[in-house]
Amino acid sequence: MRTPDPDPNEREPIGGSDDADFAAAGAGGFGGVPGGAANPGWLSEVELAEARRRLPMLYVEAVPVRTDGTGAVTQVGVLLRASPVGEISRTIVSGRVRYGETVRDALFRHLENDLGPMAFPLLPPQPTPFTVAEYFPIPGVSAYHDDRQHAVSLAFVVPVTGTCEPRQDALEVTWMSPEEAASDALAAEMEGGRGTLVRTALASVGALR
Amino acid sequence: MRTPDPDPNEREPIGGSDDADFAAAGAGGFGGVPGGAANPGWLSEVELAEARRRLPMLYVEAVPVRTDGTGAVTQVGVLLRASPVGEISRTIVSGRVRYGETVRDALFRHLENDLGPMAFPLLPPQPTPFTVAEYFPIPGVSAYHDDRQHAVSLAFVVPVTGTCEPRQDALEVTWMSPEEAASDALAAEMEGGRGTLVRTALASVGALR
Amino acid sequence: MRTPDPDPNEREPIGGSDDADFAAAGAGGFGGVPGGAANPGWLSEVELAEARRRLPMLYVEAVPVRTDGTGAVTQVGVLLRASPVGEISRTIVSGRVRYGETVRDALFRHLENDLGPMAFPLLPPQPTPFTVAEYFPIPGVSAYHDDRQHAVSLAFVVPVTGTCEPRQDALEVTWMSPEEAASDALAAEMEGGRGTLVRTALASVGALR
Amino acid sequence: MRTPDPDPNEREPIGGSDDADFAAAGAGGFGGVPGGAANPGWLSEVELAEARRRLPMLYVEAVPVRTDGTGAVTQVGVLLRASPVGEISRTIVSGRVRYGETVRDALFRHLENDLGPMAFPLLPPQPTPFTVAEYFPIPGVSAYHDDRQHAVSLAFVVPVTGTCEPRQDALEVTWMSPEEAASDALAAEMEGGRGTLVRTALASVGALR
Repeated sequence: MRTPDPDPNEREPIGGSDDADFAAAGAGGFGGVPGGAANPGWLSEVELAEARRRLPMLYVEAVPVRTDGTGAVTQVGVLLRASPVGEISRTIVSGRVRYGETVRDALFRHLENDLGPMAFPLLPPQPTPFTVAEYFPIPGVSAYHDDRQHAVSLAFVVPVTGTCEPRQDALEVTWMSPEEAASDALAAEMEGGRGTLVRTALASVGALR
Repeated sequence: MRTPDPDPNEREPIGGSDDADFAAAGAGGFGGVPGGAANPGWLSEVELAEARRRLPMLYVEAVPVRTDGTGAVTQVGVLLRASPVGEISRTIVSGRVRYGETVRDALFRHLENDLGPMAFPLLPPQPTPFTVAEYFPIPGVSAYHDDRQHAVSLAFVVPVTGTCEPRQDALEVTWMSPEEAASDALAAEMEGGRGTLVRTALASVGALR
Repeated sequence: MRTPDPDPNEREPIGGSDDADFAAAGAGGFGGVPGGAANPGWLSEVELAEARRRLPMLYVEAVPVRTDGTGAVTQVGVLLRASPVGEISRTIVSGRVRYGETVRDALFRHLENDLGPMAFPLLPPQPTPFTVAEYFPIPGVSAYHDDRQHAVSLAFVVPVTGTCEPRQDALEVTWMSPEEAASDALAAEMEGGRGTLVRTALASVGALR
Repeated sequence: MRTPDPDPNEREPIGGSDDADFAAAGAGGFGGVPGGAANPGWLSEVELAEARRRLPMLYVEAVPVRTDGTGAVTQVGVLLRASPVGEISRTIVSGRVRYGETVRDALFRHLENDLGPMAFPLLPPQPTPFTVAEYFPIPGVSAYHDDRQHAVSLAFVVPVTGTCEPRQDALEVTWMSPEEAASDALAAEMEGGRGTLVRTALASVGALR
């Protein structure tokens, strides 16, 4: 079975993201990079797709949570998503870090993409993830699996204070209790081993029993 | 020179806090504890003062920060405080964890005490401190010193989003850049070695150079 | 049912530990503390027992692990212990921090007490625990429960490289796989909610599925 | 001035590492990846060099330390290195994560490469770095700078227990006190802003003053 991709063309078109990478890099002042502004097409969509099979890709992921007034986690947000072929699966906020982009900006961008502009996420002041999830194309190498690439993901717990209006292919955000989020039933619905990631997130906030 | 105490009678009277401990314990349902509701005075102020010289005291501390929209720390809040004898020193939010009180509640209580009710601190979802600061009565055992007790402090970085109106004996909150907060000049003004604590806090959020 | 105490008289007699506290403090140079060397009896065993019902006690705990050559956790060590009345339960390394003792020294002391002198534990260079476990006398306040006291525990994962020969009342150390250590069956046998602590430990090392 | 590269051809030839990536991927069973075993040359050295200018590269870094019997850091190891053009600079263990390689294996490989086979490093059981260092080709975007690429580095503190015999272009390992390692003098000699990384490492182990 094909695991839905955490960064498929539908969500972040390789060509598109690539152009975006270039634009971001240009905006950031990286015009001096050889092969930069002068020739944005030097690495084609196909070439990048192949690079993705030769280099580990850097990702960020976020487990959205609701907290009470003292910061304790009360609920966990899980995304319901339809794949291009109509398969429904559960996931969390996830996406690639672009060339020239900070991890923090990438995290913010993907939170906004997946939860909408009114989610008001509170990004942590610390740059350290609660875990580093390593996705390999071959199942069993680690707890995480992505059949299209080797991805290394910095995973964060992110309180959100506003209203989530999923965009793109995320159909909805389901809020559940820590117990429900840690259940085997949910883990079975999650793609790429992310049930483990949610449990690890809960443990990091003292909410796993 | 006597280091101003992080938990002096003026801020948290031992007898008073003790009564408060008892009240909290009672409210929390610990009435069944031997010597509890039936005899709140079984451990006198003097006895507790002596207990403080025989047991490590559990503290929480918070380095207040301002963050930008992506969570990066832009400013650090330092408290200016006058000791009972009029000495001025710099410190951070600090106070004891009471019997029956969660660490999280203690952190919230001391933030409110020291920064006022409109500070709107965002307590972290994680229960883990950025460091554990061990204060010993003899200088030199560790980086931290408190001549009245052996205190072990769980230290947190806490973004505050509102307006700080210091109460009790904290005269004001000074906001400064990470560079200023990490300076030798500030460290020299801070009590008990807390200059080291502020630097360690900055390092934990990637803001120490 | 009475939860076996993590620091009962049998393991660390209150009077004895108190004397030990005093001795340690004396050795550490704290002789100048009022009421110190001149009068070791100023806080009697009974008084300390009562202090323990009025102050949060500071504890350290350790989940012993075996690691492979690259540091990945392969096994978890769980202690089998008989209570004074002959009840068998499972636990981890646990004990109080004494007055004047560093957290690191307390951790080392309890590891040696519970695993024997040939365990060769590798204490982490970081002072930060993987979690802070709060034990309350009333069940349900948190995931952790200790009917004799309010204890706050700094919990660490500690690789051990030698041979464990449990001392005192620990009957044996059982080494098990991460899966087994995270099981409901084991959690049911563990005292005071420490099944949760073991799972949280496993999550912190990326070994919880 | 050109900052010596943390991953120059001399240390990890792009073509060579690429071939190594391929070999590792093959050994790991990734032969089924399109364009894999059948055509190892589909992404040439030049193409990869260009990919490095379009994608963030994933790195691992290690600050080697000596610890005492209770795990406290007593010394920090800094590498002295000569660049291909004879410039001397100070650095730490650093290198790229290859396609199909775990972060842990990459860390071990680079420790062995830079410190020799008798260093006996003790990799941490946790997968979480003490910080995430982001190197940008343009100075000033972050504390870290690498004029050849955008690299994101997972940085670890690693106790080493054996004898260091630097290989490749690392001339020697200098062991120094935490105070010396945190000094401005050392920071000025370190490449790419790694003085900040060393200080952040020291803070994470409670050894920064």
